[in-house]
Amino acid sequence: MQQITLELEGKSPMYEQLYTWFSSGIRSGRFRAREKLPSKWALCAHLGVSQSTVETAYALLVSEGYVHARPRSGYFVSDFVPDAAAAAPAETGPAARQVAPPVRDFDFSTSGVDVSLFPYSAWAKLNREVIYGSPELLQRGDRQGDPELRAALSAFLSEYRGVRCAPEQIVVGAGIEYLSGLLVQLFPPDTVFGLEDPGYAALDSTLRSMGRAVRDLPMDADGVTPETLERSGVSVAYLTPSHQFPMGLTVPADRRSRLLHWAASAPERYLIEDDYDSEFRYGARPVPAMQGMDGAGRVIYVGTFSRSLAPSIRVAWLVLPESLLRRYHAVAAHSLSTVSRYEQAVLARLLREGIYARYLRRLLNLYRSRRARLLPALEAIEGVSVSGSGGGLHFLLHHARYDEAELLARAREQGIILRGLSAYCRDCAPPGGTVVMGFGGLRDERIEEALRRLRAAWGCGYCHERKD
Amino acid sequence: MQQITLELEGKSPMYEQLYTWFSSGIRSGRFRAREKLPSKWALCAHLGVSQSTVETAYALLVSEGYVHARPRSGYFVSDFVPDAAAAAPAETGPAARQVAPPVRDFDFSTSGVDVSLFPYSAWAKLNREVIYGSPELLQRGDRQGDPELRAALSAFLSEYRGVRCAPEQIVVGAGIEYLSGLLVQLFPPDTVFGLEDPGYAALDSTLRSMGRAVRDLPMDADGVTPETLERSGVSVAYLTPSHQFPMGLTVPADRRSRLLHWAASAPERYLIEDDYDSEFRYGARPVPAMQGMDGAGRVIYVGTFSRSLAPSIRVAWLVLPESLLRRYHAVAAHSLSTVSRYEQAVLARLLREGIYARYLRRLLNLYRSRRARLLPALEAIEGVSVSGSGGGLHFLLHHARYDEAELLARAREQGIILRGLSAYCRDCAPPGGTVVMGFGGLRDERIEEALRRLRAAWGCGYCHERKD
Repeated sequence: MQQITLELEGKSPMYEQLYTWFSSGIRSGRFRAREKLPSKWALCAHLGVSQSTVETAYALLVSEGYVHARPRSGYFVSDFVPDAAAAAPAETGPAARQVAPPVRDFDFSTSGVDVSLFPYSAWAKLNREVIYGSPELLQRGDRQGDPELRAALSAFLSEYRGVRCAPEQIVVGAGIEYLSGLLVQLFPPDTVFGLEDPGYAALDSTLRSMGRAVRDLPMDADGVTPETLERSGVSVAYLTPSHQFPMGLTVPADRRSRLLHWAASAPERYLIEDDYDSEFRYGARPVPAMQGMDGAGRVIYVGTFSRSLAPSIRVAWLVLPESLLRRYHAVAAHSLSTVSRYEQAVLARLLREGIYARYLRRLLNLYRSRRARLLPALEAIEGVSVSGSGGGLHFLLHHARYDEAELLARAREQGIILRGLSAYCRDCAPPGGTVVMGFGGLRDERIEEALRRLRAAWGCGYCHERKD
Repeated sequence: MQQITLELEGKSPMYEQLYTWFSSGIRSGRFRAREKLPSKWALCAHLGVSQSTVETAYALLVSEGYVHARPRSGYFVSDFVPDAAAAAPAETGPAARQVAPPVRDFDFSTSGVDVSLFPYSAWAKLNREVIYGSPELLQRGDRQGDPELRAALSAFLSEYRGVRCAPEQIVVGAGIEYLSGLLVQLFPPDTVFGLEDPGYAALDSTLRSMGRAVRDLPMDADGVTPETLERSGVSVAYLTPSHQFPMGLTVPADRRSRLLHWAASAPERYLIEDDYDSEFRYGARPVPAMQGMDGAGRVIYVGTFSRSLAPSIRVAWLVLPESLLRRYHAVAAHSLSTVSRYEQAVLARLLREGIYARYLRRLLNLYRSRRARLLPALEAIEGVSVSGSGGGLHFLLHHARYDEAELLARAREQGIILRGLSAYCRDCAPPGGTVVMGFGGLRDERIEEALRRLRAAWGCGYCHERKD
């Protein structure tokens, strides 16, 4: 353990000193990326401070992206550029004390999206029209979301995603995270939730903070198996079947029907289908949502505008089956809507007037051509292969020669910050040498330079000499 | 028990038939307002249906405002105009299956607010400017709320409410309900929460649905006492000290300092100060927030734009003391903001440019003059007295001659829907003959007619004859 000097007589509280010591150490490179921090217990013992002091400091470090926690393993330094002010912590979002997420030179994060095609003029025009034309929108609206937006969503989801639902089944809310918290309340306290592993961390922490039981669900090449669900004693499983996050796989039709059969074959079993980036498919055939195949009313469909329209637009939706709709009415009896009615009215018109569908087509073309520039160039690097690229805004890159740590370190040396697959694993052991590359936020004019650097990082020796 | 005929061979599910039977019965007047419904147990036994069928039907009835539940007492028919389509259920908000809350002829609800002075042109102008002028607002923002809005709020709250906080202590979110759910997660699972009784029902249901322990806090004329807090084993108390809801009392300074002393005198004790309608004080001296008196960092301050600006604007805020801020960073590590950044930017400018403060002054004058028309006229009715009218948008009306049921029934005969104080009581026994009257949503042009009807309803015999 490195020597830690805490100025006990200092003005700032102990946790703050500890936090500062680690964060500055990580920035300055005293701690290396992926290095394991001392355990909380060891640190308490070593410093003679309370557990809560250490917990607070570590929580701050995690919250600000310096460090990530791996359940049952400990705390690890994030992949962080030493002392580079421009480098943002990767997936964990903007630091709580930072003003705004800095723009990254080479944004390979999975949360980045391109807003250059955002339909500004339509957005501005519709905003103006609803503000002046609809004074009733100042009054309290329907807690489930305004009927116009729900009707427009139901028509859109039916046409583009094969979702079969009445507007009455839709609940509009301020982001998937908020809606997930609401959704969890529809299930009895002893419900066991299953999460894909690797998968999203956010729901895991929502569920745990609500005191709910969570099981990690390992996957095969087609996603989670019904046998795994059965074995793990899960009754509600959260899945991303269109484009699994982060593996990028698409659950095939036969697996889907077996999963639906699993859900239908016992009471209180549900599948939560998070269709988070299904708008973007690059193959010939888009895969319709599982929800449309569900005859038993056991699929909850989840979607959002935050990835398709803009990250700052905090509007997502749930489609509830009839059985849960009744519980929703009971649980939400005192709830109010969490979305501005102006924004709902604008979104309803974007959908109804076809502006949103046209915008998605243009956006799909933009992402398609970006992907077409990236993938062949990356696959041309000796040892590199790519998977999970059939849809969405990220894929996996595998390297035959380097393990994950080496891949990340070599990219970092070239000023490119990436995340390894292991960052998304809770209990799973990721295959060696895999990184998760998002391209939604990567600026087109930076692609050539990014590729040049990645070739330098990961290419073979003589490639370095040839400098191509 | 009335004879219930359920068509078991009917197409609709049992719970739906049961729901329809009660709701149509309530609308048609077959069930009288405030009548107790059969217990769930009795209904199950009588009909031979499952408990969940009855629970679902009752939950729907509650959710749509036909019925309200009183803990440990049962289900009661709401004060509902028989078969009048224009009559909305009172506090519970728009029915989930209804398109929009109908406009009431005489809106004495406590949730109504006046939006006639809403600063449309500034709102529209600022919206236009932020949409065109700030493309960065499409990108993901700070999960705590954008720094500009938090800075503006911190300055505003300091000037107008005596709240002392740095922008770093503010968390902006989609409504008080959402933020309350977040707040609850900052406290350990075994925390015992205390709620004013009578008081808001929403937090009660949030807490219970999260499996938290809740105690009802009886009050004296100055609100909750520290002795009550001590005795009930509560560690976190939710209070509305500026204008208690629904009693309308203002907690005086000495009680405040004793409450603060209670909070400071043991670890993990907190007071949640909901300052929901403190913008409106009609007396000489506005009462600053308790938060500003708190030297120990034990007050969480809660406020919202939904009552001052417009109900559809779903933006509220928490001010967290340092100790909880650390926990917030840990709990919210995976959270994203729940409020549109455009809306945040517009609100920040409304605050910073003084538009909001000017608007509040005009609004205060409007409410002051409405109150000045209502109160003396009501107090002139023989037997009537008024309390809790020093601030906010509601007061209590007491009648020396009629009990609550009579007061409500007589008003209802005149087409005026009111709520009795008992509707807000969980464990408390309300003093006889008290109704809760909101005037935020009452249209000025309806006041004379409303007063005429209330005089007819509650006046003495010879007054009826005089027809004044």
